[in-house]
Amino acid sequence: MSDPAAPPVIDLNADLGEGFGRWQLTDDEALLSVVTSANVACGFHAGDPATMRRVCELAAGRGVVIGAQVSYRDLAGFGRRAMEVPPHELSAEITYQVGALEVFARAAGARVGYVKPHGALYNRCVHDEEQAGAVVDGILAAGGGLPVLGLPGSQLHEAARRAGLPVVGEAFADRAYTDEGTLVPRREPGAVVPDPDEVVKRALGMARDHTVTSRHGHRVGITARSLCLHGDTPGAAGLARRVRSELAAAGVHIRSFV
Amino acid sequence: MSDPAAPPVIDLNADLGEGFGRWQLTDDEALLSVVTSANVACGFHAGDPATMRRVCELAAGRGVVIGAQVSYRDLAGFGRRAMEVPPHELSAEITYQVGALEVFARAAGARVGYVKPHGALYNRCVHDEEQAGAVVDGILAAGGGLPVLGLPGSQLHEAARRAGLPVVGEAFADRAYTDEGTLVPRREPGAVVPDPDEVVKRALGMARDHTVTSRHGHRVGITARSLCLHGDTPGAAGLARRVRSELAAAGVHIRSFV
Amino acid sequence: MSDPAAPPVIDLNADLGEGFGRWQLTDDEALLSVVTSANVACGFHAGDPATMRRVCELAAGRGVVIGAQVSYRDLAGFGRRAMEVPPHELSAEITYQVGALEVFARAAGARVGYVKPHGALYNRCVHDEEQAGAVVDGILAAGGGLPVLGLPGSQLHEAARRAGLPVVGEAFADRAYTDEGTLVPRREPGAVVPDPDEVVKRALGMARDHTVTSRHGHRVGITARSLCLHGDTPGAAGLARRVRSELAAAGVHIRSFV
Amino acid sequence: MSDPAAPPVIDLNADLGEGFGRWQLTDDEALLSVVTSANVACGFHAGDPATMRRVCELAAGRGVVIGAQVSYRDLAGFGRRAMEVPPHELSAEITYQVGALEVFARAAGARVGYVKPHGALYNRCVHDEEQAGAVVDGILAAGGGLPVLGLPGSQLHEAARRAGLPVVGEAFADRAYTDEGTLVPRREPGAVVPDPDEVVKRALGMARDHTVTSRHGHRVGITARSLCLHGDTPGAAGLARRVRSELAAAGVHIRSFV
Repeated sequence: MSDPAAPPVIDLNADLGEGFGRWQLTDDEALLSVVTSANVACGFHAGDPATMRRVCELAAGRGVVIGAQVSYRDLAGFGRRAMEVPPHELSAEITYQVGALEVFARAAGARVGYVKPHGALYNRCVHDEEQAGAVVDGILAAGGGLPVLGLPGSQLHEAARRAGLPVVGEAFADRAYTDEGTLVPRREPGAVVPDPDEVVKRALGMARDHTVTSRHGHRVGITARSLCLHGDTPGAAGLARRVRSELAAAGVHIRSFV
Repeated sequence: MSDPAAPPVIDLNADLGEGFGRWQLTDDEALLSVVTSANVACGFHAGDPATMRRVCELAAGRGVVIGAQVSYRDLAGFGRRAMEVPPHELSAEITYQVGALEVFARAAGARVGYVKPHGALYNRCVHDEEQAGAVVDGILAAGGGLPVLGLPGSQLHEAARRAGLPVVGEAFADRAYTDEGTLVPRREPGAVVPDPDEVVKRALGMARDHTVTSRHGHRVGITARSLCLHGDTPGAAGLARRVRSELAAAGVHIRSFV
Repeated sequence: MSDPAAPPVIDLNADLGEGFGRWQLTDDEALLSVVTSANVACGFHAGDPATMRRVCELAAGRGVVIGAQVSYRDLAGFGRRAMEVPPHELSAEITYQVGALEVFARAAGARVGYVKPHGALYNRCVHDEEQAGAVVDGILAAGGGLPVLGLPGSQLHEAARRAGLPVVGEAFADRAYTDEGTLVPRREPGAVVPDPDEVVKRALGMARDHTVTSRHGHRVGITARSLCLHGDTPGAAGLARRVRSELAAAGVHIRSFV
Repeated sequence: MSDPAAPPVIDLNADLGEGFGRWQLTDDEALLSVVTSANVACGFHAGDPATMRRVCELAAGRGVVIGAQVSYRDLAGFGRRAMEVPPHELSAEITYQVGALEVFARAAGARVGYVKPHGALYNRCVHDEEQAGAVVDGILAAGGGLPVLGLPGSQLHEAARRAGLPVVGEAFADRAYTDEGTLVPRREPGAVVPDPDEVVKRALGMARDHTVTSRHGHRVGITARSLCLHGDTPGAAGLARRVRSELAAAGVHIRSFV
């Protein structure tokens, strides 16, 4: 997909607006000065309307692309609990969330540029063809042929391709990978890379060389147009800023995919 | 506003899609064969996404105009409990609801044609300038210069006019009026007109002669481009159908205001 | 468990209080004149506090045993969508619901007499040892050693037994059974018995002879101390009343298990 | 009420468990090492079941009295938006919350020792006789004759007294008072005392001398058996610890009122 002669290009995405009313979680302002794509919570796992409006205004003001971070309806579980939602309900819930965000993006002079499922829905749509299909149906109904940001090779991407929607693959610099180039499940030891230096190094490898070192020490090819930076951990904004500056220093162009 | 020589014209509006998941309330199909404007619940007092999608599809298929029936966030109270929502939160909540409905309307090949507050928010916006202003701010942010359906003379209409939004006045054939042409509060005796024959007669007077008989027997002028038909009572669809056919028989044109 | 010489005894249970605010679903008054055990919704899939109070008062006044009908937190899905709730969260959610009902039962001069999971949680706890264990942990924490009403042979009953809680098996007169005496899954054809006469006949067989005719025509033994009557279908109260009177006419004692 | 010869006694109360799922707000462990009474959120403005269970276990382990911090049902507004809840609904909502907390307190080997309304409900019950009466009705229905912690002279205390419930008055060391000994409303300038030294000094005056200096510099008598320490601001736990140690150093006994 990429021209070997061209300089490497990468998008940086992070979850934003993940508070709810009195509760705040993500340092939206700091992260918006780093990322090129903002996955904005749409009210189902987090994200009250006033926060959505504010994040859209901030993102639009900085030229950060606004994405709809859609989720199961589960405020109590922060969208992290898998749910057996019937496809016709799930698709409508996705459409609803995209529409609710779109109106704030438009009011801020921008547009929703892509969709990315959150938490348990993201994980479910890696393997579950039916739910992946329902999510894609919901995105289609929202109109505009929105790109779908997700895991390369996921059922979500398969379904999006079949439906004619653009797909954008992402990688995680702070997650361990198997020899097959898939994510090591979170419940397994060593699934998360705790060392900031290591995270920065892996980000560079992913963006520049399209490779990552697997947990068994092998060099594995990886195709990602976007890197996901976590925003809800202490020091998240600082690490994100460092990843960005070292990528830039290494000649990687930081640019959204939209 | 109306040309005395022209035949009288009236819109019929009703609340639709007021179920939530397993719970159904309004006979949406029956009412959609009667009304010209559908006030569709947007998820805050009622209205799950799948129901919103279905009602929008049905309405679009029959040429019924889709309106956003916006509410306080109060599923447990069906939006009937007044809330002191700070204006900047309230406006965002209104925008969110309009956006969530707009995407379903668009998916059905239609548009949101107007906005009407529900329940306690409706009542509050009759007298409360601050909340009325917040609702209008939220409608403005949603874009498209949407007309605001409400009580003639209400603070909501005042705020809408100041903001340059079209206003549409409505009347209630099944509610008693004071000598001043305002509604008798629900808590007072005789506030609701129980007799179907009387309701039909009053609807005729309102639509054709622009008058209503007050609770003290006086003939009071009333200006309404729309009549609100209640949809959540037993026999509601039947009464609505009768009102419509008798209005038509009396030469009143039934036509939406959009 | 039953003495062959003793007259057969059966409990009749039904789901009650399954409205939420403006939305009503079950005819609580009618069903409370039929059943001996009321599975009262506790607010997570249905059941607002005022309804819970009212149903407890009605049940206590008629000597109907009050049971906590506990559920996943899912008003939008009526508790019918399976959820991957971590055990330590699920157990706390169960305890919360039992406590919330207990206070209304006590205020009405009664007690919570048992616990029965609802919908997707009920189905999940048939096979899922971990979630069944979490439900039982939650019941244990609520205190009082409450009996657990559920499917004979379910993981729920296994976990309850291990924990020293009494278990009560139930059968469904309007559901088809396999040759092995398990329920035919709802998604398979013929899973539900639509004919009221047949339902009554099966109820008699279950209560008096401890048998049911399987979908392949075999006589299968069934052990149930309680029959579940559905309350949320049209004509539910009428059918329940008929089941009760025919059971009584056949010499079956209708008596709660508490 | 207090014996002039006896050493002064004061209770310290703070709001705890005010997170919800993924969102945390209060440093529960730190505050539980300072306060003698924990106002535990019960799920309506904050407080998921797992958090309620954990806070009850921690409080019981440290001998801190558990109180039910009851609220309007308003997660999105953190219970800070006044609501017109009909009395029969409000009373049931209060009972529900007390019952839900009681079961966790009991499981931890403790009891709910008192009730304190939160946020907008607290403010409303200062002046609104109807809502105050509904809250007291809800507490009565929960049983046990629970003390009501609130503002001296409030309608809440009036209603509690009429109902025969014990009342406990509280004061706020970080809030300005009028010459009449009432709180300066939050919207007025100078309503909150920002200086920690000043807060400590005022706490001492309230607990030892039963006086506070009003915003106009007058010495005003104040009767409070409890001081409310805010727990949701940065540095809250540190300030609370300092208030406690200086009170103790001044010979004030720190002891719950239960």
